[in-house]
Amino acid sequence: MIGQARQTYTKEQMLKSPGVMEAPRNQWYIGAMANEVSKKLLARRILDDPIVFYRTADGTAVALANRCPHRGVPLSMGEVLGDSLRCAYHGFEFGKAGVCTRVPSQDTIVPQLVVRSYPLREVGPYIWIWMGDPAHPDESLFPNQFELGLDRPGYKVTPYFVMEMGCNAQLLHENLLDTSHISFLHAGMIDGGSMAQAKFKSSYDGGRVRMTRELVEVPTVAMARTFQLPRGTAPVHRTLITDAIPPHLSVIINIFHYEDNPDAKHTLINPQGVTPSGHNRCFNFMAVSSSYPDEQPAESYPFIWKLFEQDRVVLEAVQARYDSEGWDQPEVSVRADAAALNYRRKMVEMIEKERASLLGPKLQSARV
Amino acid sequence: MIGQARQTYTKEQMLKSPGVMEAPRNQWYIGAMANEVSKKLLARRILDDPIVFYRTADGTAVALANRCPHRGVPLSMGEVLGDSLRCAYHGFEFGKAGVCTRVPSQDTIVPQLVVRSYPLREVGPYIWIWMGDPAHPDESLFPNQFELGLDRPGYKVTPYFVMEMGCNAQLLHENLLDTSHISFLHAGMIDGGSMAQAKFKSSYDGGRVRMTRELVEVPTVAMARTFQLPRGTAPVHRTLITDAIPPHLSVIINIFHYEDNPDAKHTLINPQGVTPSGHNRCFNFMAVSSSYPDEQPAESYPFIWKLFEQDRVVLEAVQARYDSEGWDQPEVSVRADAAALNYRRKMVEMIEKERASLLGPKLQSARV
Amino acid sequence: MIGQARQTYTKEQMLKSPGVMEAPRNQWYIGAMANEVSKKLLARRILDDPIVFYRTADGTAVALANRCPHRGVPLSMGEVLGDSLRCAYHGFEFGKAGVCTRVPSQDTIVPQLVVRSYPLREVGPYIWIWMGDPAHPDESLFPNQFELGLDRPGYKVTPYFVMEMGCNAQLLHENLLDTSHISFLHAGMIDGGSMAQAKFKSSYDGGRVRMTRELVEVPTVAMARTFQLPRGTAPVHRTLITDAIPPHLSVIINIFHYEDNPDAKHTLINPQGVTPSGHNRCFNFMAVSSSYPDEQPAESYPFIWKLFEQDRVVLEAVQARYDSEGWDQPEVSVRADAAALNYRRKMVEMIEKERASLLGPKLQSARV
Repeated sequence: MIGQARQTYTKEQMLKSPGVMEAPRNQWYIGAMANEVSKKLLARRILDDPIVFYRTADGTAVALANRCPHRGVPLSMGEVLGDSLRCAYHGFEFGKAGVCTRVPSQDTIVPQLVVRSYPLREVGPYIWIWMGDPAHPDESLFPNQFELGLDRPGYKVTPYFVMEMGCNAQLLHENLLDTSHISFLHAGMIDGGSMAQAKFKSSYDGGRVRMTRELVEVPTVAMARTFQLPRGTAPVHRTLITDAIPPHLSVIINIFHYEDNPDAKHTLINPQGVTPSGHNRCFNFMAVSSSYPDEQPAESYPFIWKLFEQDRVVLEAVQARYDSEGWDQPEVSVRADAAALNYRRKMVEMIEKERASLLGPKLQSARV
Repeated sequence: MIGQARQTYTKEQMLKSPGVMEAPRNQWYIGAMANEVSKKLLARRILDDPIVFYRTADGTAVALANRCPHRGVPLSMGEVLGDSLRCAYHGFEFGKAGVCTRVPSQDTIVPQLVVRSYPLREVGPYIWIWMGDPAHPDESLFPNQFELGLDRPGYKVTPYFVMEMGCNAQLLHENLLDTSHISFLHAGMIDGGSMAQAKFKSSYDGGRVRMTRELVEVPTVAMARTFQLPRGTAPVHRTLITDAIPPHLSVIINIFHYEDNPDAKHTLINPQGVTPSGHNRCFNFMAVSSSYPDEQPAESYPFIWKLFEQDRVVLEAVQARYDSEGWDQPEVSVRADAAALNYRRKMVEMIEKERASLLGPKLQSARV
Repeated sequence: MIGQARQTYTKEQMLKSPGVMEAPRNQWYIGAMANEVSKKLLARRILDDPIVFYRTADGTAVALANRCPHRGVPLSMGEVLGDSLRCAYHGFEFGKAGVCTRVPSQDTIVPQLVVRSYPLREVGPYIWIWMGDPAHPDESLFPNQFELGLDRPGYKVTPYFVMEMGCNAQLLHENLLDTSHISFLHAGMIDGGSMAQAKFKSSYDGGRVRMTRELVEVPTVAMARTFQLPRGTAPVHRTLITDAIPPHLSVIINIFHYEDNPDAKHTLINPQGVTPSGHNRCFNFMAVSSSYPDEQPAESYPFIWKLFEQDRVVLEAVQARYDSEGWDQPEVSVRADAAALNYRRKMVEMIEKERASLLGPKLQSARV
């Protein structure tokens, strides 16, 4: 239906329904895996903005609004020419700052021929994009890489994948905070079956919500392989932490140690960028950082992909109900949901704060 | 679009348009063929309620609301454990009455953790479901099995199939009452070509609408095979009756006899459950009951399926027009449509009566 | 969603957005290629009217509303019987004037059983359809065939194809007027790369908008083959004209001549019917008329098809943005867009004039 305004949800609706959570714009989000962006154009919708990514001749990553200001053709249908992007339709060219540098049919170029250029920062496996005012990216908000498990001395980082999911990003955030589902949805894959019963506590440390579970069990074969643990019958102490960092990140930390060998401590960290694409679509940008010196086993990539496919199927089914039946589907929460609900409140606070600011609405509507 | 209320149609709109007929809730509908329900979960939407069917250890059929009250996952993604159903996501378990019996991450269970359980009755080929107040299924409304051609001494019942159709149930009801289409849409299949011209009368017997056509013709080969008639050139007297029982059933009765052999009378009855799934989706639950002692011929199942496929294609095309062009598409009726129009009035009466009752609106909105 | 009124756009909205242009009804449009219509039924939606085309026994083309007035089945599901069309469902028959001639279940026929019959005119490769009041087709509005490049002494006409495009007809009109895109979207196919820089002028001649580009270049191999030019290194003078005739036609004229051989002039004319199907769907009915005596080369048909596929992909991407983001997407125009914008104004003038007339609204809502 043409011409309809996008729906906006109230604080109360977002608190009640993870299917309709919105997203603050004045933030850095992971926009792409570094290895996805090249001289070939990559089209991606982030926070409902159509964006095109590419690299210039010297390898610098660029993100522009994916819409030619002339006649509206997605720029991702065009091609990269040196540092510029050329539109497929009439050959207009745009530099990395989004300014038009060539109109083939005439010599002059009006200043309105410009597309929004999104500030980027490339660090390690990820390309971060600033979705707020392009003139004022806030470096103080750039995530601490150490906390993400990146930039840690002695740790080995492996980029995994980006998985697109047909659900609101909030559903994925809550899924990652709620580790009791591991024993059921992922039965036999990454625990021995007792994670759901493990002792847990949730805490709030600065802006983040932390969920911690602790347990001791003999690793299964699949679990030992995934986490590079020695196979055998020795029980391992495991601490599983989710740090949910609103509005855009989730860090899963697995710490293993053995009673009889305190030195054999092993930590695996999964930093995950949870980036909204649209109302019912998001991305999970996934990597692993390991304190263990060896390479990740070859089968770990497809194994982790399969694991998140299980989440994706369930989360999409939940979102489909919100989309077909209405945002106000009832929920009944249990104690293990405290962390997820707290994260939901933090998100709504952030969104409300941005809405109340003078910049908020202006940026929300700012489209090139 | 999230959050939109479901549209409700007025009496006048429903009288004018079979594409927007609603459905009374305080009724028994056929919810499944008995042979469809097993230890494996069956998901089905009935009167817009998402429902999951399964059988307990002792074979009892169960129907629960297909949505975990915890985080909204369809329970049909889970599995049956003895008499209970376990949710795929966090392993919550629900008994056949819909009460939660296990939350793996804690020992206590709040009473809100319950899903609606639908009263069922299994008789012969069908499992009937009560869509009204679960605490008060009305046994007096349970359909008379004899009238459906079931439970008749000497008759042999064969379950056929369930066919899902992308149209309002009312379109299928009117199709079944309107037997003149047999000579055209099903040309060469179940009449000799003269059904459309046969003498007909429609009558109203209690709550039901009856359409009767009578004719004498030499059966074609296909017709003889379908109805287990002797092949040859002897003309057969045929009475074709449709009993439409609002809001949920249609019974097709074929009675054949021969002038020179009054004893060789043969009756075939097709009880059909016409169950709304959604606004533009319904099910036809199909069986046959025959006074003839032999088994139905092996080819009868695919033959009847093919026949209803012809109906499905046409009815879906009609519904698609209502859906794309609006409910108020004009109709011009002829005399043979009197039965269908009368049935439409009976349906609207029933719906209006339920809407006017104190229970109606409350049950309409009752969702677990 | 059932029952919603079709949206209507204001003058200002249509001027700003080619994605929401409407269409005048009191006009002749090309409805079909002559070679598409036969004894088999052809269903096609034109100006949002569902229409069925066929030929009678003597070969006369007929167009009827594609909806049986009895129960709404698309008549295109039925079959042609002599001069009549029989509905698939109940066998009702309709003659070429749309009047019902048979109701199998009864002897009398009520006069309401009639479908709208659309006046047609078949000339050369095209069948034209009058979308206004069926009782008053305006012959004075019938397009001049000579101006379309048809009916020219010594010219050879070859029908090409109909291509359906998922965009508003206005986007295709503007594409055809805007020949600078040839050097980019169709790079290497029909120019030597300098069309976008060629001198151009736009003019308004009577009701039509004309865009003219002139250039001299050595034809590429593909270009020489397409336009039947001698291969070699002699530069050719080329005049490329688009005549856009609101609301329904676009004529592309290519005139080639050689400095040293003024007699070797060659003209190729492509008359194109641009017919709206729906809001975001249109047809391009394509033929070629050549002053050159030889047959079009065999490869010209797939080559021109491929060319328009390139346009289709881009125009559908632009329309998709209007449909998903709203009608008011910004545009920044350059000088070469003057012709397209002038055509847009002519279209809106025509639509406004029809809306203001007494006939307009009545015909807009006239549905059988």
